[in-house]
Amino acid sequence: MSAKNAFYAQSGGVTAVINASACGVIETARKHPDKIGNVYAGRNGIIGALEEDLIDTSLESSDDIAALKNTPSGGFGSCRFKLKSLEDNKAEYERLIEVFKAHDIGYFFYNGGGDSADTCYKVSQLSEKMGYPVQAIHVPKTVDNDLPITDNCPGFGSVAKYIAVSALEASFDVRSMAKTSTKIFVLEVMGRHAGWIAAAGGLIEDEGIPVVILFPEIEFDQDKFMAQVDAKVKEHGFCTIVVSEGIHYPDGKFLAEQGTRDNFGHAQLGGAAPVVANMIKEALGYKFHWAVADYLQRAARHLASESDVEQAYALGEKAVEFAVAGENSIMPTVDRISNDPYEWKIGKANLADVANVEKMMPMEYITEDGFGITQACKDYLTPLIKGEAYPAYKANGLPDYVTLKLQSVDQKLEKFEV
Amino acid sequence: MSAKNAFYAQSGGVTAVINASACGVIETARKHPDKIGNVYAGRNGIIGALEEDLIDTSLESSDDIAALKNTPSGGFGSCRFKLKSLEDNKAEYERLIEVFKAHDIGYFFYNGGGDSADTCYKVSQLSEKMGYPVQAIHVPKTVDNDLPITDNCPGFGSVAKYIAVSALEASFDVRSMAKTSTKIFVLEVMGRHAGWIAAAGGLIEDEGIPVVILFPEIEFDQDKFMAQVDAKVKEHGFCTIVVSEGIHYPDGKFLAEQGTRDNFGHAQLGGAAPVVANMIKEALGYKFHWAVADYLQRAARHLASESDVEQAYALGEKAVEFAVAGENSIMPTVDRISNDPYEWKIGKANLADVANVEKMMPMEYITEDGFGITQACKDYLTPLIKGEAYPAYKANGLPDYVTLKLQSVDQKLEKFEV
Repeated sequence: MSAKNAFYAQSGGVTAVINASACGVIETARKHPDKIGNVYAGRNGIIGALEEDLIDTSLESSDDIAALKNTPSGGFGSCRFKLKSLEDNKAEYERLIEVFKAHDIGYFFYNGGGDSADTCYKVSQLSEKMGYPVQAIHVPKTVDNDLPITDNCPGFGSVAKYIAVSALEASFDVRSMAKTSTKIFVLEVMGRHAGWIAAAGGLIEDEGIPVVILFPEIEFDQDKFMAQVDAKVKEHGFCTIVVSEGIHYPDGKFLAEQGTRDNFGHAQLGGAAPVVANMIKEALGYKFHWAVADYLQRAARHLASESDVEQAYALGEKAVEFAVAGENSIMPTVDRISNDPYEWKIGKANLADVANVEKMMPMEYITEDGFGITQACKDYLTPLIKGEAYPAYKANGLPDYVTLKLQSVDQKLEKFEV
Repeated sequence: MSAKNAFYAQSGGVTAVINASACGVIETARKHPDKIGNVYAGRNGIIGALEEDLIDTSLESSDDIAALKNTPSGGFGSCRFKLKSLEDNKAEYERLIEVFKAHDIGYFFYNGGGDSADTCYKVSQLSEKMGYPVQAIHVPKTVDNDLPITDNCPGFGSVAKYIAVSALEASFDVRSMAKTSTKIFVLEVMGRHAGWIAAAGGLIEDEGIPVVILFPEIEFDQDKFMAQVDAKVKEHGFCTIVVSEGIHYPDGKFLAEQGTRDNFGHAQLGGAAPVVANMIKEALGYKFHWAVADYLQRAARHLASESDVEQAYALGEKAVEFAVAGENSIMPTVDRISNDPYEWKIGKANLADVANVEKMMPMEYITEDGFGITQACKDYLTPLIKGEAYPAYKANGLPDYVTLKLQSVDQKLEKFEV
């Protein structure tokens, strides 16, 4: 078999470590020139494949590819775009095959979350359904930590570390100020459907911090919540609240949607944090501060978890090794061997078992009152935030993050409108 | 002269490095047992002195005191409380003297910003005005960077580093997503009156990031702002906006006060970031994300600037050395010798020249269009974010921050109500 080229793309919301997976894919592919020719990256994800907008990664130096391991965000650009089913949009699949053929692509590495696993699964069927031989391997990535089978998803561990450390630091701050000033600190975190990220805030409880978590899995009960907060302030003098952006009322309405209007009558999009903070002020009278971490949390490569970076790289590396070994339609997974000492290995899952399956947070990870995490949850989370994997810094005090050259491969086909 | 005890207190909003100054004060005092007996820390700042609520720092281990250097927040508690003038509230000064006498206190080290410098100055006059001999030395601290004479204020450099790094990381994230999703990222930072912190966001411009800054020094002009943002998105595909919480309209009204009401008719306190983000969406239609860093920025010891930590420690150390040398009514300062290589030394200023003087950001640090920082500003800021001074981390993945024992000194006086 002569060497085939590989296609690699980043999909969906990016993370602090998705580029570490890219690094693992490209560095490993370069070790197998007998099987893999060039790695072409899709500019802005799968759209790059459809538009034949391919980046020639062979033109990037090995230093720059290595630097991807320490650079947050998607170095090749990502997109939010889900391929429809083969029946609903055959034209897109025909186009993919046309592009793959034109550039002699025999491997498809797709780096993303749940929707992307579905896309990757569909591509893995092209060989059988449309007669084009391609091996499709999914490289897991999502801060939402909601892919099945794998123990955890790259990107999540670093967000968890960032949230735990940031909540701890801000809680120390509030503790200092509580005598005459702020007694409540509310931190809003990502996670519209699952409370994995909010749960990480619970790790600071064992550091002596009174913390109340608002999970999207638990319907918001204002009275119960106020009683919790008030009890903690009365006992400790202050309280930290970690609120998921997905917190909602029993009728499904998000707390962040308060139906507020500004002076011009426009609907005002707020965050859940200011809503919760103002509620506490109204009900209990405590002075508050609030923060919304938003992209800061998922981009915070400066505080990435070492185990997360290592796993992100290893999953990219193994994806290529599986491909070289002839596998198709699979996803390498993180398999946990033990918690303490933390040991893991890379396993694999069939994409058919991954696509469109969402892993929810087990209810036994949430305390009975609905506002905290259990020991089982702490045992699960702690290894994921272990270790620091600092980027290098430049003389100007900023991290030495790489911006790639991103040179295009010559186009051979007619234009295609996505 | 026999040894006198020292009083040390933290005042106002705490920072990532105020405890490094505390460490400098206590470790240095311990080296001068001939002059300084115990260091008593005020529990929750000056209130601890008034209420005779003193913490015996001699009961803290040298390891724990050393750990303060790497722990954010105010280890002894802080407060927002300003002593009135001697004429307006003689009782408080008499009480201070009563407490100082009862505990044989001859040194007063006050660690704070502008208001605190004024308090420290008043205490430094007690000897002359009320016949009680006390040496009062102010240890500068404020993320607002608004104390005069000193080149910069401990706490500011670390916030500046945090904001620059965080804005860079989030900008990389947005750049990845801009093709099909988010094109605008708005980061709200502290600084109600001065744009020092917002200015730090401008440091990412030289990393290739299109950034627009909204300073509190510049009246908000919506049309000019939209034109700036739109031009940057058209050129780069995305734009990062760093907005000071103090951004306001020409009539002085803060953007954060939008007069919004929630479903219950309560006034809704928002942030400037969501207001600005929604404005852009309305005017230009771009998808946005926004973050409000709030306490995360000033507590972020995990990303402290090395020069900031060193200066915070050195200022505490020098404060004690000045006191031991017989000085009163002064503040040690950071004097910049050169930018590149960055060199500095500790100088001193008379408190009479510091109290109630606010250092504003020079207008020549803001570009003519009002939305960026000049090279002079970059030259000023860059040394302040130089170097990383990471805290140690524990096996559980969290930083090893110290919580002191904080044991009280026996009270000798009647209660006093603040």
